[in-house]
This record gives sequence, structure tokens and C-alpha cells, in this order.
Amino acid sequence: MGRWEPGASGRLREAALALYLEHGFEQTMVTDIADRAGVTARTFFRYFADKREVLFDGASEFAEKSLTALEAAPATASALEAVAAALDAAAEIIGRDPELARKRHAVITANADLRERELIKLAHMSAALADGLRRRGAGDTEASLAAETGSAVYRVAFQRWVDAADDLDLRDAVSQSFAQLRTLTASN
Amino acid sequence: MGRWEPGASGRLREAALALYLEHGFEQTMVTDIADRAGVTARTFFRYFADKREVLFDGASEFAEKSLTALEAAPATASALEAVAAALDAAAEIIGRDPELARKRHAVITANADLRERELIKLAHMSAALADGLRRRGAGDTEASLAAETGSAVYRVAFQRWVDAADDLDLRDAVSQSFAQLRTLTASN
Repeated sequence: MGRWEPGASGRLREAALALYLEHGFEQTMVTDIADRAGVTARTFFRYFADKREVLFDGASEFAEKSLTALEAAPATASALEAVAAALDAAAEIIGRDPELARKRHAVITANADLRERELIKLAHMSAALADGLRRRGAGDTEASLAAETGSAVYRVAFQRWVDAADDLDLRDAVSQSFAQLRTLTASN
Repeated sequence: MGRWEPGASGRLREAALALYLEHGFEQTMVTDIADRAGVTARTFFRYFADKREVLFDGASEFAEKSLTALEAAPATASALEAVAAALDAAAEIIGRDPELARKRHAVITANADLRERELIKLAHMSAALADGLRRRGAGDTEASLAAETGSAVYRVAFQRWVDAADDLDLRDAVSQSFAQLRTLTASN
């Protein structure tokens, strides 16, 4: 799909994020996005179901890659180590394009509905990781606890990365947050 | 307020939960709730802004008591110890009425909008705890990490408590989850 318009989906995404940041998500129409990207609204709908989808269409790749990494963790890995492997894979994807990730985050932060949707997406991701851990033989509570804690670590690391002025790597930020969690719990 | 109708708010809450469980949240009208509680719809609105409020009006007491406990934790307490004190206070409130808590949870679990609202409420609570930790002098990331991790521990403990056939105490469930988190991170 879209072979006849190379880069249209990338141009649309860039145009959408720029407009959401300039005028707000609510105020931006699909036709505005298409205009700025130099395509028709029909082309927009070839790539995205609606204007919200531009922000969330990466979620399935994100979830799938994380789960694959969780499943690929050695059988000897602890539940939290397996989650760490999953989040490292997630960080690798998101960290590939820091500018896109930061703009997306700024758009989402500015809008209550989008913040809610992001929360729900992360909750689903955490539930999927917990299920993956159960399939690896983790106990029910252990699986939930490792997945929920891992998600917490990821969210905090992501925020630190987004706010960082320097060129912190997202994968490093995640592994540093895991280390900090160990310090916190050890001193408790 | 309501001195002339002793127990009306409790009767309304009980009637609402029973109807939400029997017919679903969407299908239940305020007049149904008032009828079952033996009061008028006008009385309902003296206590609750709408039918959703019946499920969420405890959130402010919950957040306030938790924050007070966090602030009351000794200055020598670690960030995670202070969060544990906050969650113990929260568990004390919620655990007072297990039947109410379980019914409320069943209603919320059955409805996507309510699940979202609950997620948002918990995210606000976590953000408030992180702010409280910063006021106690915790570093920015440390505060977020302790608050988010604590919320994860609480959610997992709450789910275990709701599912428990025996008469597990919610405060015990929370402290057991904290202990399990220490085990998980120590072995990682």
C-alpha cells in the first residue's frame, strides 16, 4: 500500500504532529494534515483510521516486539529479568526516533483524552507482559507484580528521557531506572 | 446534609451497586436507584452528582488519608517506606468494607469507561504521592519511581485481595506484595 506515494505516511505523521503542537489536537482536522503533507484526505485515510491513530498506530509493533523479547529471555531468567528484556526491546524501538517520541509525548501530555488513551495502552501492555510471564511459569501474583513494576520503571525512565537535555539513550535510561529500583527496594 | 434522612447515602450506594451488578451500569438509571433505596431522585442528587459518582466519591478521602500518612512518615523513612505508609493507610480505608470494595470492583471491571476512570484515578494518586515525596526532599526520579512502584504493588495486592476466597486482610496483602517486590528485585 502506498507504493505509488513514497513516504506519504511519514510525511503525514510529521505534518500531523506539527499541527497538533501548533494548534492543538482538537483543533486540527484531517484535511489540514493532508494539506500540509501535500496529499489528499483520501490518502490520509489509506494510512490512518483517524487523527488519533497517527499517535497510537505504533502500539501494536511496540507490544509485539516486547512480548517477543520476553518470550526469548532464557528460561533461567527471573520474572523481572524477562520484563527488563521486554522493556529493553520497547526502548530500542521508541528510542530510534527521539524527536518523534518527544513530539508525540508533548501532544499527548497536552490533551486529557489522549493521556487517558496512553494510560490504557500502557495498562494493556502490562497485562500482556504479565500473561507472557504466566506462560513462562511465573506465579500469578509474581507475574502481575513483575509486569506492573516493570511498566512503572519504564514510564519513569521514559519521562526522564523525554525531559533530558543531554543525549541520554532510552535503553540506558530504562536500565538505570531498574538499577535505581533495586537500590530503593534494598534500602527499604 | 441529609440529617433528616439518616443512612440515605448508604442505602443509595447499596442500591446502586446491586443494580449495577444485576442490570449493568449503563442500563441503570438514577430513578431506579432512588426507587430501590426508597427515596426520590432529588434525594439521590443531594448526595451524588451522577450515577458514576456513587463509585468514585471515596477517591478524595482515599487520596487525602494516603497523603497525610506519607507526610507523617518519619524523616528518616526512605521514599519507598513513606509510600508503603501511604498505601497502608489507603488499604485501611478500603479494607474496612470488603463487600463494598468487591462489589465496586466487579462493577468497574465490567465496564470499559469505568475501568478507564479507575486507571486515571490511580494515576492521579500516584502523581500526588510523587509530589509528596518531592516535598520530603526525594529526588525527582526517585520520587516518581517510588510512587509508581508503590501504586503497582497496591494494584497487585488489591487484585489478590479481591480474588481471595479466604479472609485475607488488605493491609496484609499490601505488605506481602511489598515483601515480594523486594524478593523479585533482590534476585534480579
